[in-house]
Amino acid sequence: MHLTQEQLDHYHDNGYLLIESLLDPREVTALREAFARDCTVPGPHLVTEDAGEEVRAVYASHHRQPEYAGLIRDPRVLGPVRQLLTDDVYVYQFKINAKPAFGGDKWAWHQDYLAWRIADALPAPRQVNIGVFLDDVTEFNGPVIFLPGSHQGGMVRDGRKSGARSEQHLDPDDIALTPGQLAEHVDRYGMSSPKGPAGSVVFFSPEIVHGSAPNMSPFARRLLIATYNDVTNLPSWSGEPRPEYVVCRDSEPLRPLSEPFLDALEGVTA
Amino acid sequence: MHLTQEQLDHYHDNGYLLIESLLDPREVTALREAFARDCTVPGPHLVTEDAGEEVRAVYASHHRQPEYAGLIRDPRVLGPVRQLLTDDVYVYQFKINAKPAFGGDKWAWHQDYLAWRIADALPAPRQVNIGVFLDDVTEFNGPVIFLPGSHQGGMVRDGRKSGARSEQHLDPDDIALTPGQLAEHVDRYGMSSPKGPAGSVVFFSPEIVHGSAPNMSPFARRLLIATYNDVTNLPSWSGEPRPEYVVCRDSEPLRPLSEPFLDALEGVTA
Repeated sequence: MHLTQEQLDHYHDNGYLLIESLLDPREVTALREAFARDCTVPGPHLVTEDAGEEVRAVYASHHRQPEYAGLIRDPRVLGPVRQLLTDDVYVYQFKINAKPAFGGDKWAWHQDYLAWRIADALPAPRQVNIGVFLDDVTEFNGPVIFLPGSHQGGMVRDGRKSGARSEQHLDPDDIALTPGQLAEHVDRYGMSSPKGPAGSVVFFSPEIVHGSAPNMSPFARRLLIATYNDVTNLPSWSGEPRPEYVVCRDSEPLRPLSEPFLDALEGVTA
Repeated sequence: MHLTQEQLDHYHDNGYLLIESLLDPREVTALREAFARDCTVPGPHLVTEDAGEEVRAVYASHHRQPEYAGLIRDPRVLGPVRQLLTDDVYVYQFKINAKPAFGGDKWAWHQDYLAWRIADALPAPRQVNIGVFLDDVTEFNGPVIFLPGSHQGGMVRDGRKSGARSEQHLDPDDIALTPGQLAEHVDRYGMSSPKGPAGSVVFFSPEIVHGSAPNMSPFARRLLIATYNDVTNLPSWSGEPRPEYVVCRDSEPLRPLSEPFLDALEGVTA
């Protein structure tokens, strides 16, 4: 799949691009089943509620589940990413967030690349994120909110807040815009939150200012976020590197599958 | 002003009715100025931030500010209320909430009438609420969310949670729907949040299940909520009554002004 010039312009002007229903319901079902299966694999990649067994996030499912290994190479996903970034890309980070009913972290307004520069010394903002809706995303269940165009001004903050607690753990507040910075940016850029049925995919810039509303609905909302990075733009660490389930080490350039991931998978297993 | 049959049907079917831009910008400006003026009047009716001087809510401004005394009798507001409820109504409760930037209470999903039955022994749900937008209401700044039609099933909860802390103070959680109750109701009724420019007014039932999203924007959002009650449906207290700024005692039936509140006010002061 190739993005049109209009779609490319939308991404470059606004810092994001939504493609509704890029995946069909059968594929969404398969991805949900693979997520459920992955939630039964114990390990540090599995983040659960403080006090319970409910899964909040899972990292690096593409290392364990063939559906996700296929999805990141699906031509409908990897094709546009290569158009937007460069031919040789790999998956730097992969996670699925299950934003719980009636809540979920209000992840403070931030730019992704600042976190990665601080944590992993990533040299440049040469990434494209994809957000894959595993549930319908509505105004009520904690959609991501973007400030369209805010990716064009570089990093709003230079570094993290002084007194930050750890080099390893990034507290959202450490990299969040101040209230004054955000007010200025919202005045200038406005706010927009792409919504759509399960199977929709939003491509977004590592430099766009965004936040996430709480989930007011009584149902959890699952969202996959994968970050593709330019293979010439690798992380490095002066101290202890972040774990591999958070920062994937395999930077071999990904080549698109010749068909949609589920067809490819069924071809393999048939 | 008279509601059409279609508007009446919408209210009775859904439990709410939004009229966009019912007030004009000049009137909105006058109401904002009156609010700012009222915020300088000290007293228990003024609710401020825990640690600061920022005003969170003001009660009973219609007792102090002529603009609000006029607004509650404005024919565009009182006319529809009388159509929806009955000819003889008075204002039982009046407050203006300033939902702060980046936050604001997530007032748990609830039905207003349950609170009033518990706190004031209000005999029946013979009320109509009005919500007057003093700022534009968007999906981002903490709109009220309704479950359309949920007013038709009576009170979901019978009473407050056992172990409630006080008869006087109503903790939202004491009257909130349980997660299971809410899931069932959202499945059945869906969610809807009326949005519109400043000056819009939403009329809503005391029995409709509703909640309120946090304000994700960097700007405070001011919303006036007044509750009209049938004059034959008065509160009573076995113990200490709630203060008069919370529960207004003057139950003299309100008669509509002959013209919009600002014209009437300017006529008086000219």
